[in-house]
Amino acid sequence: MAQVAPSAGYTLSIRVNVRNTPGRLGALTTAIGRAGGDIGAVDLVEHRGDVVVRDVSVKCRDERHGQEIVEAVRAVEGVEVRGVTDRTFEMHRGGKIAVVPKFPVKTRDDLSMAYTPGVARVSSAIASDPSRVWDLTIKGNSVAVLTDGSAVLGLGNIGPEAAMPVMEGKAMLFKEFGGVDAYPICVRTGGGDWHERAERIVEVGRAIAPGFGGINLEDVAAPVCFEVEGRLAGELDIPVFHDDQHGTAIVVLAALMNACTVVGKPLGSMRAAVMGVGAAGVACIKLALQMGIGDVVAVDRRGILSSMRTAEGTNPWKRWVARHTNRDRVGGGIDEALKGADVFIGVSGPGLIRTDQLATMADDAIVFALSNPTPEIMPEEVPPNVRVVATGRSDYPNQINNVLAFPGVFRGLLDSRARGVTEEMKVGAAQAIAGVVAESELSEEYIVPSVFDRRVAPLVAAAVQSEAGQQTV
Amino acid sequence: MAQVAPSAGYTLSIRVNVRNTPGRLGALTTAIGRAGGDIGAVDLVEHRGDVVVRDVSVKCRDERHGQEIVEAVRAVEGVEVRGVTDRTFEMHRGGKIAVVPKFPVKTRDDLSMAYTPGVARVSSAIASDPSRVWDLTIKGNSVAVLTDGSAVLGLGNIGPEAAMPVMEGKAMLFKEFGGVDAYPICVRTGGGDWHERAERIVEVGRAIAPGFGGINLEDVAAPVCFEVEGRLAGELDIPVFHDDQHGTAIVVLAALMNACTVVGKPLGSMRAAVMGVGAAGVACIKLALQMGIGDVVAVDRRGILSSMRTAEGTNPWKRWVARHTNRDRVGGGIDEALKGADVFIGVSGPGLIRTDQLATMADDAIVFALSNPTPEIMPEEVPPNVRVVATGRSDYPNQINNVLAFPGVFRGLLDSRARGVTEEMKVGAAQAIAGVVAESELSEEYIVPSVFDRRVAPLVAAAVQSEAGQQTV
Repeated sequence: MAQVAPSAGYTLSIRVNVRNTPGRLGALTTAIGRAGGDIGAVDLVEHRGDVVVRDVSVKCRDERHGQEIVEAVRAVEGVEVRGVTDRTFEMHRGGKIAVVPKFPVKTRDDLSMAYTPGVARVSSAIASDPSRVWDLTIKGNSVAVLTDGSAVLGLGNIGPEAAMPVMEGKAMLFKEFGGVDAYPICVRTGGGDWHERAERIVEVGRAIAPGFGGINLEDVAAPVCFEVEGRLAGELDIPVFHDDQHGTAIVVLAALMNACTVVGKPLGSMRAAVMGVGAAGVACIKLALQMGIGDVVAVDRRGILSSMRTAEGTNPWKRWVARHTNRDRVGGGIDEALKGADVFIGVSGPGLIRTDQLATMADDAIVFALSNPTPEIMPEEVPPNVRVVATGRSDYPNQINNVLAFPGVFRGLLDSRARGVTEEMKVGAAQAIAGVVAESELSEEYIVPSVFDRRVAPLVAAAVQSEAGQQTV
Repeated sequence: MAQVAPSAGYTLSIRVNVRNTPGRLGALTTAIGRAGGDIGAVDLVEHRGDVVVRDVSVKCRDERHGQEIVEAVRAVEGVEVRGVTDRTFEMHRGGKIAVVPKFPVKTRDDLSMAYTPGVARVSSAIASDPSRVWDLTIKGNSVAVLTDGSAVLGLGNIGPEAAMPVMEGKAMLFKEFGGVDAYPICVRTGGGDWHERAERIVEVGRAIAPGFGGINLEDVAAPVCFEVEGRLAGELDIPVFHDDQHGTAIVVLAALMNACTVVGKPLGSMRAAVMGVGAAGVACIKLALQMGIGDVVAVDRRGILSSMRTAEGTNPWKRWVARHTNRDRVGGGIDEALKGADVFIGVSGPGLIRTDQLATMADDAIVFALSNPTPEIMPEEVPPNVRVVATGRSDYPNQINNVLAFPGVFRGLLDSRARGVTEEMKVGAAQAIAGVVAESELSEEYIVPSVFDRRVAPLVAAAVQSEAGQQTV
């Protein structure tokens, strides 16, 4: 595996006293560069006689690398380290979101309108016409980011408290890209078997629905996530969307559509090997089938799923996949699945795929290695028959990132007051994302727009809203 | 009952074309004044030839009064009504609070720190040391405003959707006065008996607790509120505070302490008649006993509570009250309770008390008629033996308003990371509020500070924090 590049996600701010003689700052930055640190801002804090106090911002790879860099700085003659702070932790202090009034309550008149007695008329209006809750409260722009913290990033079941920073980050992205007010609801399920844990999440989702226009399920492990989403979607009159499934599937399919154009093979002729049949895997497979992919061969820890394989150890959703994929009833494991495949989609774990395995794929193969931060295989390790590579990482081309989907999806759902999410909406969202990259711009290294491309969310929202409109007609 | 005064809670904005000849604007404002409307801003929108377009802001008493005023305006020669908007409803459009990022996510580096990959280190840090959730997430400043909408203002059981505007207003006040991030959690309990409904609220409160530093129960009807508060407080390691009980009790006791000083009777010598033994009544009685009041006689719809009265039709909390009050075992109803009483506290319903009933109280009596917006008796109707009157209204002196308590109480609870709320904290909060009015300023018409007195919340917070500190020592 290749070495991870320094990331802003690990940025140290090193405060140093630098002796004010020529060459000392140069020696300092040289030392950091030699240690592999990526220097950002070098701020001047103050002059103190013959000493200059500076804050040097350095991106590192990881904790040990950070320590190495600080040691390298300490070793520089004429430089004294006064303190080291971790900028990511600094930014998290006190949390990342706030709840703010939309207008001030500074006078008695403000209070009379925003609270008693004026608010009583607004509450009465909703009591007599419940649909007005959409206009007269935050509901119409609010999404609950609901999790039990059981499958957080690559960290696994870390629980509701440790999930909070991720959900807060999600809420920031909701606002920044979709203008949506999202609030983290991190629930303790209190153990039990997976049915009991699902029941607990369903109870909370059902109970809190009156105040929200939609529910974004997040980082809930399979199979609990399937059960919770299915039941809440069935019971509630607001949309329920498990982002790890459908957000991922939408962006993967958008990328796949454009990759098909780049390699000149139609989607209907493609066979995809999908490794990992958890939340994301199942959703990608379903959406790919919905969009007309030729065939899928799905592989979990026990090997290839097929209608021949015994049901033992599988859940209903894996059985669904087994029934709807693997037309040729291929047996075996990932080696057999990859042989001659046009597409590899990895939603499994770091470093699980070797170069020689991908070499057995078809010519002009497409590889999406989506385990994050460490993909199933690093882009520089793919063999020559692979023409398009995508990962979840920002430091390689073709980043598959849910941020391209969920803000626009919920913007569209809320604006259309959709009561649910349909397959057509997901297809529309995928097409909208794919369409942002003009055919003339498409290349092996540009199959999905940047996460900061501001055109994406409005187009996704419009696609979702258009499908929602067709539903109600 | 006296007529209600016009309130900013019912403000119409009337857009009119006024013919640009002398005296028309005067005729317009005169007409509104005669109709009893209270004119605020008169804005000029535009000149159009010989017509001036204006927006006139008018406070009214209620809907019918609003219509009368508009009719009066229509009748003015040379004035044409172009449109009428209700400012309270305008302010509620889209809701009153927003969830905002504390810093922008505009660049890849921002994203790497606020979200992946940087956030994974923060989540890991919390997973290995759960106490860090207080520092590294919003938990340490966040309060859930939890309701089932079963006892909203004077409106009763209007349900979770219709409760939203009140809870959003509460969230605004939390931020404005306490700097607390509060979020409305309005739950649908789905019916059943009161134990089942309590169970449903307890489940939600327990489940969502990881993301909050405290829970403010709000507008939950008795006896569900007692059960929910008791169980959640027992199970959770964050404070649970039912504002309708304890917020009210704190402010009532603050006012009562100062009223005692004004009339020159010590609290320990006082007998209070409390009418209404719901959430607020029970809490006021408990806190009054805690603070050493002489005796209390409590009256519900069936009459005076006493240890002699059969338990039939009462709940455990009323039985507690019956056991701890009415030392002389007075029987009967409100008439018997008021006879010779020093204090009347009404937390019952509009217009339930007559002048002649209060005339039987002791000399220098204190009357708190807290039913809102219409008190048990209007201040101008009390007999001469009553020396101090307080209500929940802003248009009379001595407004008893929970806003004086809850922002400071939660500020103190969060800052001390209190795991619960003690009686001592409530006493401390009441003393802090009372202490804001200097003894030299105290008078019959000034026993509580204004809700906009910015000294209150910090002093209440400090009192709560000081009690919390003594707990942990």
